[in-house]
Amino acid sequence: MGEINKNVDALVDEWQFSRNARELQSSIIREILKDSSKPGVINFGGGLPAPELFPVEKIRKACLDVMDKHAVSALQYGLTTGVKELRELIASRMRKQGVEVTTECIQITGGAQQGLDIVGRAFLESDSVVLTETPTYLGALQAFSFYRPKFVSVETDNDGIIPDDVEEKMKKYKPRFIYVVANFQNPTGRCISNKRREALVEIARKYRCPIIDDNPYGELRFSGQHLTPLKAIGPDIVIELGTFSKIISPGLRIGWICSQPSVQTIIERMKQACDLHSNSFTQYVIYEFAAAGHLDPHIETVRKAYSERRDFMVGMMKKHFPKGTTWTEPEGGLFLWVKVAGNLSTSAMLKDAIAAGIAYVPGKFFYSEKADDTTMRLNFCNATNANIEEGIKRLAKVIASAK
Amino acid sequence: MGEINKNVDALVDEWQFSRNARELQSSIIREILKDSSKPGVINFGGGLPAPELFPVEKIRKACLDVMDKHAVSALQYGLTTGVKELRELIASRMRKQGVEVTTECIQITGGAQQGLDIVGRAFLESDSVVLTETPTYLGALQAFSFYRPKFVSVETDNDGIIPDDVEEKMKKYKPRFIYVVANFQNPTGRCISNKRREALVEIARKYRCPIIDDNPYGELRFSGQHLTPLKAIGPDIVIELGTFSKIISPGLRIGWICSQPSVQTIIERMKQACDLHSNSFTQYVIYEFAAAGHLDPHIETVRKAYSERRDFMVGMMKKHFPKGTTWTEPEGGLFLWVKVAGNLSTSAMLKDAIAAGIAYVPGKFFYSEKADDTTMRLNFCNATNANIEEGIKRLAKVIASAK
Repeated sequence: MGEINKNVDALVDEWQFSRNARELQSSIIREILKDSSKPGVINFGGGLPAPELFPVEKIRKACLDVMDKHAVSALQYGLTTGVKELRELIASRMRKQGVEVTTECIQITGGAQQGLDIVGRAFLESDSVVLTETPTYLGALQAFSFYRPKFVSVETDNDGIIPDDVEEKMKKYKPRFIYVVANFQNPTGRCISNKRREALVEIARKYRCPIIDDNPYGELRFSGQHLTPLKAIGPDIVIELGTFSKIISPGLRIGWICSQPSVQTIIERMKQACDLHSNSFTQYVIYEFAAAGHLDPHIETVRKAYSERRDFMVGMMKKHFPKGTTWTEPEGGLFLWVKVAGNLSTSAMLKDAIAAGIAYVPGKFFYSEKADDTTMRLNFCNATNANIEEGIKRLAKVIASAK
Repeated sequence: MGEINKNVDALVDEWQFSRNARELQSSIIREILKDSSKPGVINFGGGLPAPELFPVEKIRKACLDVMDKHAVSALQYGLTTGVKELRELIASRMRKQGVEVTTECIQITGGAQQGLDIVGRAFLESDSVVLTETPTYLGALQAFSFYRPKFVSVETDNDGIIPDDVEEKMKKYKPRFIYVVANFQNPTGRCISNKRREALVEIARKYRCPIIDDNPYGELRFSGQHLTPLKAIGPDIVIELGTFSKIISPGLRIGWICSQPSVQTIIERMKQACDLHSNSFTQYVIYEFAAAGHLDPHIETVRKAYSERRDFMVGMMKKHFPKGTTWTEPEGGLFLWVKVAGNLSTSAMLKDAIAAGIAYVPGKFFYSEKADDTTMRLNFCNATNANIEEGIKRLAKVIASAK
């Protein structure tokens, strides 16, 4: 990081980059994880889904179907909003989850990450306030940061965001929006409870403050009680970001924004200025994959595999982690959240961890204010049982010997 | 447009959108061309390449090759910079054109349109000055407009941008960059001559002002003298935007930015904040299409077809257009530029034209200052000879009867 920033500083003197560009940092996770790609390092750090579960044969067949049925539309310029068949499919799936939406509310994006950028474009400018959970998704902080907002973090517990603190901060800061990951949050794996969802929507309505619900993991519930989508509770005040990255493939880069018809008018213009429209070809590939009936069975396969890996990792943690270490046991998603005992620093510990052949993301990067450096994020879904066992053993030793 | 903007205005009162979002207009071309999709309307308006030339069978084969050889990489998250094999291919093709570049200078983007947005992000903020050609590409004006720069237009003639005026305006306005389409410009079809290119680079160096050369059409030369790429003349000061949209398919949404290693550091961060990375799958599809040896023969096919259509359209214009109408005869690309006689207004005439079953884009939208409303842009590549003949006849009548 240091070296990169130094070079950039030299450049800034030479050419006139925008202030936003000069001050935007490179992704900390990507920088950290450069070291973790060394041979022999077991990596619980990244946010990658399990590649061995990619439905390769079914996607191959979907490609052929696209070329048979939609070749010209898939290869030509398309509408900014996206491929109609895919938008209809998404709207229909959301309706089954209790969200009242029409196709016109769906804007296709280049993954949910572009959804975050577009929401930032639409709402933020220098010194706008964004409320975030504590901790919150680092990638969202990075996407929004380009627009130079001020982040204010709201207290959370195991039931998610705490309504009284939301209300206090909405009153005090008049935020442009509140950003949450209501389902199996990145990084903690926690959900916002139904009761809290109701309260959050009520407060947001009172202060006319949009809720951005970033929802990449909602369909990956392994166990526990089904929760009502935030967008179903507050269709007028919630903007939901979705993606096929975790339920089919991230390389196809297809996500969506589900807003209100009136907000969609602004969203569509932002998208047009970004890149005209998303990849038509892979929009059709996802549509044909789903139309062939593969989507729900595939999600079930992924759920089952991730559920087993969560169980296995949690089992290994119980067996090997030193006393005083605690963790979340998420009912879905990809991540769990570890807290080490005392005043140990997970960021200081990372160098030893990588030397011992195990990588994670130190928790402190997921805070927009007042970081807790005793935390770390582990991805439980992208490793074999053998690697999970070995990785947790290595990590346990690193934690035990840290001071 | 009016109705949309009215609705948005109402919204702005309700929610706090960013100033940039509120003031960004929807694409004028897309609004105009909504009417032109009526049955029976011959459309010379859009910027679409000819769909009947899409190499459908070869792309289908490339999809299968991707699934055989790169399935996991094509479906997993990828590097922000892009797929290495494709970046190497692009760098190698650019070197053959005389541009000294390494793979690390190539950033993959979601079409050249995202390249424009990323360049805007990197350099522009409120009231930054951008120099543009007269006229200039409307889509670039729209992409840059989000960052609220001030556009200053530089005089041009048939040899492209006029160096003395560039120098005067660089001195006076200290622009963040100058934006040009050096090859077969959109909208005029003109090129900047070699002599002017040399002069432009020299002036840009003197004022340390980057040149953005948007180059979607460079490989589509039908006739005339080969020109040296601007990036070959000024590798230190030119940033070139490229795309596969006009030489393979726009639906695959793959373009690139070729800058300098130092500038690339900033570009990569901008890209990361936009959407992490471009579609891995279609990057590999393009790579496999090219690796199978199909790219150069396909470009030759497209060149030949477009060349014939240009000849045919120009022939029809000579035969049917009223006296006093003039036009460019481009040596490549997709567009030509018509100027009607006297004080006729092509924007006023458009309604009658669409009623007569012929659509074009009024030229006035391509000016960042002082629009010439006697001009129009015609796309000669996306129509059959029969439609070109009929369309030009209709347009000739509309021009002849306009007052």
